[in-house]
Amino acid sequence: MKAILFDLDDTLYPEITFVKSGFKAVAAYLCQHCQHLDCNEQYLFDKLLLYLQSYGRGKTFDYLLRDLDLSIDHYIPLLIYIYRTHVPEIKLYPNVVSILQNLKHKGFSIGIITDGMASVQRRKIEALKLEKLLDVVICTDEIGRHYWKPSPIPYKIALDYLNIKPVEAVYVGNDITKDFAGANAINMHTIQVKHADIMVQEGEKINEAFKAKHVIHELQEIFEILDRLHLDKQN
Amino acid sequence: MKAILFDLDDTLYPEITFVKSGFKAVAAYLCQHCQHLDCNEQYLFDKLLLYLQSYGRGKTFDYLLRDLDLSIDHYIPLLIYIYRTHVPEIKLYPNVVSILQNLKHKGFSIGIITDGMASVQRRKIEALKLEKLLDVVICTDEIGRHYWKPSPIPYKIALDYLNIKPVEAVYVGNDITKDFAGANAINMHTIQVKHADIMVQEGEKINEAFKAKHVIHELQEIFEILDRLHLDKQN
Repeated sequence: MKAILFDLDDTLYPEITFVKSGFKAVAAYLCQHCQHLDCNEQYLFDKLLLYLQSYGRGKTFDYLLRDLDLSIDHYIPLLIYIYRTHVPEIKLYPNVVSILQNLKHKGFSIGIITDGMASVQRRKIEALKLEKLLDVVICTDEIGRHYWKPSPIPYKIALDYLNIKPVEAVYVGNDITKDFAGANAINMHTIQVKHADIMVQEGEKINEAFKAKHVIHELQEIFEILDRLHLDKQN
Repeated sequence: MKAILFDLDDTLYPEITFVKSGFKAVAAYLCQHCQHLDCNEQYLFDKLLLYLQSYGRGKTFDYLLRDLDLSIDHYIPLLIYIYRTHVPEIKLYPNVVSILQNLKHKGFSIGIITDGMASVQRRKIEALKLEKLLDVVICTDEIGRHYWKPSPIPYKIALDYLNIKPVEAVYVGNDITKDFAGANAINMHTIQVKHADIMVQEGEKINEAFKAKHVIHELQEIFEILDRLHLDKQN
């Protein structure tokens, strides 16, 4: 095994913290610029979180603006812009830095393959101070929208970059609907990490090709899998 | 007048230098990774430039790969990725830094509103070391694809950010097909800069609403326009 490639959101850090950090930025903006509003940042933040929990992602800002009697047409593009371009306050899951350092120390190349708007994903990677640990970063959006996961193309590009074969690499992700199909298709090893705090879609009808070959509950367990794969190879 | 907002490509720096810098990165990658190719970086770079000049943008890499007898399916996404994510070697037009410093010194807020993939545009702004001079940067892509110029929305967002009115701001761009319509529509001042090295589309049928209110040939001339606008206001 020569390289360990990771998904970003909900694999290396909890994505909800990015959402909350974006909500904070939006709440701060509204309080500062709409001084006629008789409310404070915490109130707006709590409202946004409540809408998220009640209705899911997608229309959170619409609900808030309606609630505040502010023009949706005027404010939606602005709030989206603030959300997407804010400097995120996010933190890696516990031990991620030491796990990555340990992997590098053992001689593995380390990388990230992530969907999502590239400028936003790169801002997250910067906020998490991951750059110096990474040998390759593939924001699929920078190849093109049709190369988002589960396309195998971003995995191929990462491997070409590192000059290694698919069987010499592992992809570690969390989402069985898209993280593993492309990696499986080109014969990479795949590991699903099921963090306790993340709801994972567990539809019974998920095709085998979409499932990871190994499942772990803490990133730390990756070392056992790597040992096992190494033993398997020798037998 | 309180703010001067600029387009980026071909307004503050010549975009062809970004294209060349990307071609260099692609040529370097191919030489390094396809060692069976009996050619050097300069040869590949010259080929790419020739294809660009002959056929325009869009299919340059396809022509090169066909020429080298390399798989288009395999290499296109990879070359696009290298092109888009390379660290660009680009330079501002002469005097741009001193013009921006001068404007800031006079009390103007300074900003950029630019179309294009946001991660690429932000990499350009970083390479040009512009951040510390800018009060606002709007990459329209971060609001959404349908808010690219000539939509008036990115201009509105920039003005909301700066808390100023459209009539207190100027947009300086180069491209009459998209730079000025949105700014004109909300009653901003508009200035087209026609750099001598840039071919400008001069279709006779361009609607008046798409044209800039002022035309200059050197960015330096912006000061005369600002003086004139100031006088106009007093009269």
